Amino acid sequence: MERFALATDLYELTMTAGYYSKGLMGRATFELHVRSLPPHRSFLVAAGLEQALEYLERLAFTSEDIAFLRGLPPFEGVPAAFFDEYLPRFRFTGTVWATEEGTPVFPPAPILRVTAPLPEAQIVETVLLAYVGFQTSIASRAVRMVNAAAGRPVVEFGSRRSHGVEAGLYAARAALIGGCGATSNVEAARRFGEPASGTMAHSWVMAHGDEDSAFRDFTEIFGSHAVLLLDTYDTLNATRRIVSSGLKPSGVRLDSGDLTAVSRAVRRILDDGGLEATKIFASGDLDEWRIAELVGGGAPIDAFGVGGALSTSSDAPLLGAVYKIVALERDGHVAAPMMKRSPGKETLPGIKQVWRTYAGGTAAGDLIGLADESGGPAQSEPLLTCVMKDGRRVHPPKTIDELRAACRLRVDRLPQGVLKLEGAERYPVSITAALRRTADTLAASSK
Amino acid sequence: MERFALATDLYELTMTAGYYSKGLMGRATFELHVRSLPPHRSFLVAAGLEQALEYLERLAFTSEDIAFLRGLPPFEGVPAAFFDEYLPRFRFTGTVWATEEGTPVFPPAPILRVTAPLPEAQIVETVLLAYVGFQTSIASRAVRMVNAAAGRPVVEFGSRRSHGVEAGLYAARAALIGGCGATSNVEAARRFGEPASGTMAHSWVMAHGDEDSAFRDFTEIFGSHAVLLLDTYDTLNATRRIVSSGLKPSGVRLDSGDLTAVSRAVRRILDDGGLEATKIFASGDLDEWRIAELVGGGAPIDAFGVGGALSTSSDAPLLGAVYKIVALERDGHVAAPMMKRSPGKETLPGIKQVWRTYAGGTAAGDLIGLADESGGPAQSEPLLTCVMKDGRRVHPPKTIDELRAACRLRVDRLPQGVLKLEGAERYPVSITAALRRTADTLAASSK
Repeated sequence: MERFALATDLYELTMTAGYYSKGLMGRATFELHVRSLPPHRSFLVAAGLEQALEYLERLAFTSEDIAFLRGLPPFEGVPAAFFDEYLPRFRFTGTVWATEEGTPVFPPAPILRVTAPLPEAQIVETVLLAYVGFQTSIASRAVRMVNAAAGRPVVEFGSRRSHGVEAGLYAARAALIGGCGATSNVEAARRFGEPASGTMAHSWVMAHGDEDSAFRDFTEIFGSHAVLLLDTYDTLNATRRIVSSGLKPSGVRLDSGDLTAVSRAVRRILDDGGLEATKIFASGDLDEWRIAELVGGGAPIDAFGVGGALSTSSDAPLLGAVYKIVALERDGHVAAPMMKRSPGKETLPGIKQVWRTYAGGTAAGDLIGLADESGGPAQSEPLLTCVMKDGRRVHPPKTIDELRAACRLRVDRLPQGVLKLEGAERYPVSITAALRRTADTLAASSK
Repeated sequence: MERFALATDLYELTMTAGYYSKGLMGRATFELHVRSLPPHRSFLVAAGLEQALEYLERLAFTSEDIAFLRGLPPFEGVPAAFFDEYLPRFRFTGTVWATEEGTPVFPPAPILRVTAPLPEAQIVETVLLAYVGFQTSIASRAVRMVNAAAGRPVVEFGSRRSHGVEAGLYAARAALIGGCGATSNVEAARRFGEPASGTMAHSWVMAHGDEDSAFRDFTEIFGSHAVLLLDTYDTLNATRRIVSSGLKPSGVRLDSGDLTAVSRAVRRILDDGGLEATKIFASGDLDEWRIAELVGGGAPIDAFGVGGALSTSSDAPLLGAVYKIVALERDGHVAAPMMKRSPGKETLPGIKQVWRTYAGGTAAGDLIGLADESGGPAQSEPLLTCVMKDGRRVHPPKTIDELRAACRLRVDRLPQGVLKLEGAERYPVSITAALRRTADTLAASSK
């Protein structure tokens, strides 16, 4: 997006003006977490951190932005210095700790933690939630689909169903982190250094009037990159035409019908015609359950193209991620832990860390504790690491290829039962005694 | 988005190269329609047209775009003239007919129709589908929520759950068209000339340590714009504190708990304290069903803030919109009607129009026919009108306020039974005899 600063909730800006007006400029810590797993999901996979950090590095107010805010009715009573001094110089100067993209995460463990002067930590809430919540939902679903495909490539095809152009790009990114091997979105392929993939549409066949010339023309131009779409009129007829015409496409695509039966019949015709090397690519309203069914039923499908179910995370299009203040320095001293106690929406207080414990190489559970507890349990790995200091990234971004490999490694270390599509085991998440005590003490204190 | 041209599916670009290579440059007509209503939905409301037209007007390839494409493996066999002559001069030069934004639409009626030289009409598919499908899903849900609220204002609060920053802006736009009176997204408010709305977050209260000073500070700065959030610790205590402190906020917000019971209790405390003028604003995982329940149960709530259910269209995050070729001129003659016959995914052939018929001022049904049929039935209104010629808009864009008013008028002319949240009547959609004959003839012809 070309302009970010005002693409946020009004209250982030009014509260920022309020904190400034009242001199509430102490360092605050906010944590971003998902309240609970969506139905059907037994794990989430963190993603979107890179876009969150880009946003933090670039956030600034233009003079137009400031003039617009100044003219909004709620800002009438805000001191002029907020518009003349604070906003023009505004930069995010805070520290960020986060879970690496591609890491499986389990609510309510924090995924991201921001420490910054209160207004800076507050103002970024809306956009951080949008980027991290969205990509996390997509990456998680991609892992489920890739697991269901059991080694067959899964390609992200969902840009046409995505919630706009930007959403298409970042859905592709998250899907690639989650294990997709390619995307149909060319700009995503360019930005993220990944392969672009595509076949042909029904319109290509229809514009030619007959399949013979449509297939011949496409193969002539695109050679070994030509994947021919079979179902515009009649799939088996189309397959026979390919064989009889002597074409040797690298692949064919099925997009409708009973994909198990049709793929078997197509495979037979191809094989009988000497086209054993031609791959079968399947698409058409696929999701992890359909893929699992096709794979389980032995459909001779070599690769899957998935669309809107992936690019909109259709079973869980929103995750209910929240970003809550957990500590605040007053007068430069001690970060006071704090918690919200709204019914059903309580938060865990204090600056936290999450430790993943392992037993024999397999993740045995996550432990949420206070960050200053001494190092976590034995054989455990802290999931939150420092990724930004003084508003600048600590490390250069990893490639998507690196993140995908790390994701696969970490997913493979989860208990197998947690990865099941149906009736998955619940992954154990607990909190330390010290965190429990802090929460209980705060809950007991009357406000 | 700053760069559009490659943010599309690879196959749009390979097919375009293919059409160019093979001289398939005749004028083609593609229509965009939704295959069927999602579960729970009895109508859709068209939106996103404005962004679709902006895209068509601005679409162009930079030299970097072209160099990138040229280097992609599938393009190896494409003639150099495609990169040296065609793409650098590429502009969309076509004609577009469309349903006005805010109009209720019923599958499978076309919402948008593009006629242009085949490559131009093809290449825009992915982005048109994304913009129109996405905003249509949101506008439709907004109408349902606004109807459920029965006259109480509904404010769009969903940016934090949207699929990125761009999605947040356009979700707000579609929600406003669908009847929301304001949005929390300040950039959306600026771009679309609409009110920005917001209250305060729990963090404001928590950063103050106690509600008394949090409420006092906020009211001091924001005066009549201050809406105080009550549920950080204990809602009723917070309400009593407001009364006893002598504050007179214009509104309070409830964000958790049993909203019917809590709103009644809060209303009583406010009224007993002389704060009859203070409005009650409710939020927290609201959707049309929750709103209907609250309104039906007589909860004294004056306005609703809705988030992710609206901004992600969570019950139907994708609509299954498709964009299909329906006619193609060959050698400059006659537009041949065409249809796809994939099982379960058949399309209606030919260049079409949709007529909405009325009886006594109420919409009685939509009739899909061929565009060249003589004017449609009596007392009917053609829904598709020409919005772009030679790649330029025919009319200046309407304001969101105009579109929202037109939407309300058109929604109010639907049969009441169609608007019900549960067990809604099916709105009648039929096709003309001439269109049926064309489809039957094409289906019978063996390809």
